[in-house]
Parts: sequence; structure tokens; C-alpha cells
Amino acid sequence: MPVSREVHLIERPKAMPTLDQFQIVETNVPDAADGEVLVQNLYMSVDPAMRPRLTAGQDLGVAMMGGALGRVVQSKNGDYAVGDLVSNRLGFREYFTSDGKGLTKLTPDPDLSLTTHMHAMGMTGFTAYGGLLHIGALKEGEQVFVSTAGGAVGSIAAQIAKIKNCYVVGSTGTAEKAAWLKDEVGLDAVINYKDAPIRTQLEAATPKGIDVYFDNVGGDHLEAALRRMNTLGRIPVCGFISGYNSGHSNVSNLSNIIYSRVMLRGFVGTDFMHMYADFQRDMAGWLKSGQVKYQETVLDGIDNAPAALIGLLNGLNAGKMLVKLAD
Amino acid sequence: MPVSREVHLIERPKAMPTLDQFQIVETNVPDAADGEVLVQNLYMSVDPAMRPRLTAGQDLGVAMMGGALGRVVQSKNGDYAVGDLVSNRLGFREYFTSDGKGLTKLTPDPDLSLTTHMHAMGMTGFTAYGGLLHIGALKEGEQVFVSTAGGAVGSIAAQIAKIKNCYVVGSTGTAEKAAWLKDEVGLDAVINYKDAPIRTQLEAATPKGIDVYFDNVGGDHLEAALRRMNTLGRIPVCGFISGYNSGHSNVSNLSNIIYSRVMLRGFVGTDFMHMYADFQRDMAGWLKSGQVKYQETVLDGIDNAPAALIGLLNGLNAGKMLVKLAD
Repeated sequence: MPVSREVHLIERPKAMPTLDQFQIVETNVPDAADGEVLVQNLYMSVDPAMRPRLTAGQDLGVAMMGGALGRVVQSKNGDYAVGDLVSNRLGFREYFTSDGKGLTKLTPDPDLSLTTHMHAMGMTGFTAYGGLLHIGALKEGEQVFVSTAGGAVGSIAAQIAKIKNCYVVGSTGTAEKAAWLKDEVGLDAVINYKDAPIRTQLEAATPKGIDVYFDNVGGDHLEAALRRMNTLGRIPVCGFISGYNSGHSNVSNLSNIIYSRVMLRGFVGTDFMHMYADFQRDMAGWLKSGQVKYQETVLDGIDNAPAALIGLLNGLNAGKMLVKLAD
Repeated sequence: MPVSREVHLIERPKAMPTLDQFQIVETNVPDAADGEVLVQNLYMSVDPAMRPRLTAGQDLGVAMMGGALGRVVQSKNGDYAVGDLVSNRLGFREYFTSDGKGLTKLTPDPDLSLTTHMHAMGMTGFTAYGGLLHIGALKEGEQVFVSTAGGAVGSIAAQIAKIKNCYVVGSTGTAEKAAWLKDEVGLDAVINYKDAPIRTQLEAATPKGIDVYFDNVGGDHLEAALRRMNTLGRIPVCGFISGYNSGHSNVSNLSNIIYSRVMLRGFVGTDFMHMYADFQRDMAGWLKSGQVKYQETVLDGIDNAPAALIGLLNGLNAGKMLVKLAD
């Protein structure tokens, strides 16, 4: 019966969350009963989409939820052996028991690092892949803009667009991430939105307009992009980070979608599961050939999970934000 | 050589247009030269989409443009005979010469009134048909909301949704139009947005949410609808009347498109021309069977064209706003 630490939300944030709104709680997790496994989480994922749930959806005083990668440490379930790796949605805790529902056995690619399965090879990468190719219906050689291009999803979306021979502009909020996108990833133009208004920078960076805007931000980024959309342009809307803390995501020029006959569509990865096998094959190849690069920011220990989430919402991460819970 | 009166824009409106921003100008139109026809317009169309062009696009001091139905009164072009009816884009004038480009010969349905070809049987009806069935991908039995349901496009969209066995809510701005929609058209619920906030009325009228919102308005209507959209809902965006005079079309809750994975798409009728033959067959049948009803507001004489446009933007029309230019 291991002692497990878990993260509780104890007060709803009204704006940017603060550390005192979370609590680390020790709990005793029972051993695996018949038909169950006991799982020890190794890594947990921290994602922007967790922010809205803090405002509504996440109960107070119970363990939070999120993507995680764990290892079976006890098994009384014939489908799982001790040592099996399992993807799960029970992050923000060190141990849990399960009857197997909601677990997905992971056979890691020996030529890739284990953690890539938590971002580029996982739902993070799949969100970028399907969002761009299915929702955005990206065609070879189009004009593409990706916001939060230094983030986990944005960086993959931007690189897939480059692989499809597109002209790709990325926006990010630090000089380090801008340099990585320009020098390592090779985007055609990179905007640091803290240097000057996004509107003027985007206009200068998109002389041929925008066919596909992969939106993670909403707000001023979306407004700037709407001014630049080409006829029949597509805007897959993956996130609205700009509004997660303020509660607002205003744009004043949504009417441009009529004049340019533009589509906006919100989506989640499960909207295009039929593409998952293609995604896994393509992405494994791109990672191994170096056509897709990634960055990770890994904090150590569950005590740092709240700080990881707050840091992510402040853009302190390079690439995927993870918390390592065990070896 | 007939004398033709035409409507010029002489000053750009900053908000709601006023009569003194237009001028009626007399001009001499030459007789038809070799290869040409001389056309006398019988009716001209007045549409909400004309408003944005007054702000940008329409040159000052020249005849305005718009849909019209004319009759050939002189012909030196073998493709046209005197008496032929021609749809054209040269409204806001009584006569014009043409080499035939941009004219579409019209063979009116003898069982329908001539003017239906300027609304239900024309681009107005086709915009409703394709916007709802193609862009909105309407399915039988869905939950539908149509704004400006008393208008030319909205009234057709609402009735097509009823024909597809949907639950249909319409919004409008006068008691007369509300009564027509409820009693004559038979919508399931009708909202007069001037009676109470659209948000609370729409919530009460859509107990099962909204699958398709046919948007002619933007602004507060779109914001209210975004709160009610069901998962994987669609919003064909036909117009943003709320913003045409103010220049703004703000919504504060666009992030709802992520949570409910909603699609918004701006469109024009030419986006689905492949459906035109189906549309003509279906709509002629629905009009003749009485399944689709319509209203018209017809002002008389080109002198009234500016007043017709201003009246339309103030919602004074019932159904299609037309100006009759000649018998």
C-alpha cells in the first residue's frame, strides 16, 4: 500500500493561477485487488487546456486529472504484466489502481526517447497533425501562420507545414524560442509578439496573406490573422490561451470571415481518430529523420506540478512541459 | 437614346446611411451598338451586403451596383431578342447597354410570380439553401436557430429547416414579422429580440441546444448562440448586419467553439454552384406546394432606392426588399 502524493485544486483562480490555490496531499493507495493493476506514474503532462477546467469542471479538494505515462507495479489483471507502460488520464498523482479501463498499453519506439510518446508521438503531436491536415485541410505550398509556435503543439504544427512545403510564419513570446524557431526549425519568418504589435508584424511577415492559421491563442493573434486571411482560408482553433486567464477572447473583426469566406473550427484530437495510424507512421519517420525537432521542459517531482502549470501559462516552457514523477 | 436615372453614392456613411449621402443622377444612355443590347431594368434588389460596400468598395459619384431584373428593349446581339428578360448586376439604374457579358437570360416559371426569381428562386433563396444544407451540413431533425428569420434569406433558411423536419427557432425585430413566422410559417419558436435580451430568450427557446445556427447578424445573436451550440455544431455565417453600421461585430465567448468543437464559416452563394440545379428544382416545388412562403416589400421608382436600402438596414422590410423600376 504505497503512499501517493496528489495535487488538489483548493481555490478557483480568477485570473492567472497562483501556487496557494493548489495543495499537495498525501494519500494511501490500496494494493491491486482482483482484476486490478497498481500503476506508478513516471511522467505527467501539463497542458494549456487545463486552465479552463480550473474555472469550471475541476472539483475542489480532489486529485486533478491530466495525461500521464505510468508503469504497472502490481498486477492482478491478466491483460497487464508488472513493468508494462501505460498511458492514462490520471496525472497529478504518483500512484493509482485501475481495472484497466482508460489505460492504453504503450510499446515505446526503441529509436525514440520515452518522453516523445508524451508529446510529438502522443496526443500533442496528433492534435497538431490532424488539426493542420484534417481540420485545416492544408495543401502543399500554402501560406501558414502558427501561434505559440514555440509550444508543444505549435512547434509540431509549424514543422508539419514546412514538410508540406508551405511558407510558415510562427509567433512566440521569448527571444530564445524565436531563435530556436528561426535557426533550428527553419521557419520562414518568426514573430516575437512582445517586440511590437502582432498586427503590424504579421502584416509584414505574410506578403501573400494566410491560407491556414493554426490558432492556439485567440484574441489579438486571431484578430491580426483575420485581417490577413486569403479567400477560403481555414482557421483550426486548437486553443484560446489569451482568454484562459482573463475569461475574454474578443476579436472585433470576425466579420472578415464573410468577406474572405473563412472557416474557423474548434477541435480536439478525438475528432479525427481515423488518422491515428497514419500519424504514428509519419511522425516516427519525421522524428527519426530529424525533420521534426522538439524541445521539452521537464520539472522534477509532483511538488512542482502546480509551478509547471503556472509556468506554462506564463510561457516559461520551451516545447512540451512535463513533470517527472519517478524513474 | 433613353434618359436613365441612376443612384450615386456621394458621401460614405460612418454609421446608418442617410438620404443625403445618395444622389439621383440623370444620364443619357446610348442606343445599342453592333453586338450590344439595351436593357431596361424592371426590378432591382436591395440587400444587407450592400452596406459594407458603402464604407469601402463602392466608388463615389458613379452608379451603384446590385442585382436586377431587366428586359431587352433594343438588340444588335444575335443571342438576345427584344423582350428577353435578363438577370444582371447593374441595379440602381434604369437603363444600360451591354455586350451580353454578365447577363443571364431568365425564363420565368409561369406558375410563379416574376419577382420570386429575384428572391426565393434566385441568389437569395440559393444562399439560404446552400448555406444551410452545404455549409451548415444540416441533417434531418436537428435543432436550428435562424436570425433575421423575417428577412429574405432567413425566412427561406428557416422554412427549409422545417421541411427537413428540424426544430426551428427564428429571431426577428417586429411583432408583425414574429406573428407571420409563428402563424403563417409555423416555426417552433419565435424570438422578438426587441422584447427582451436575446440571450435569455434563446436559452428558453432551445431546450435541446443548437446544432446549426444560420447567422445573418453576428454580435449579440452570435454570442447568445455560441452559449447554446451543441457538440460539433455548425454556424454558416451569411451576414453580420449588427456590425455593418457600427463597424464592430464583437463576441466575447468565441472560445466556446473549442469546448463544443463548433465550426463557423463565412460563405457566398458562388461557393456551392454545383447545387444550383437541385436548388431550382426543390425550390420551385416547395413554392408551388406552399411549403415555402415568402413576403416582399416593393417600393416604387428609382427615386426610392436609397430609402429602400436605409429601410432594409432598419428592418422595415417584410421579406425581400425590391424596388420596381418599370412595368
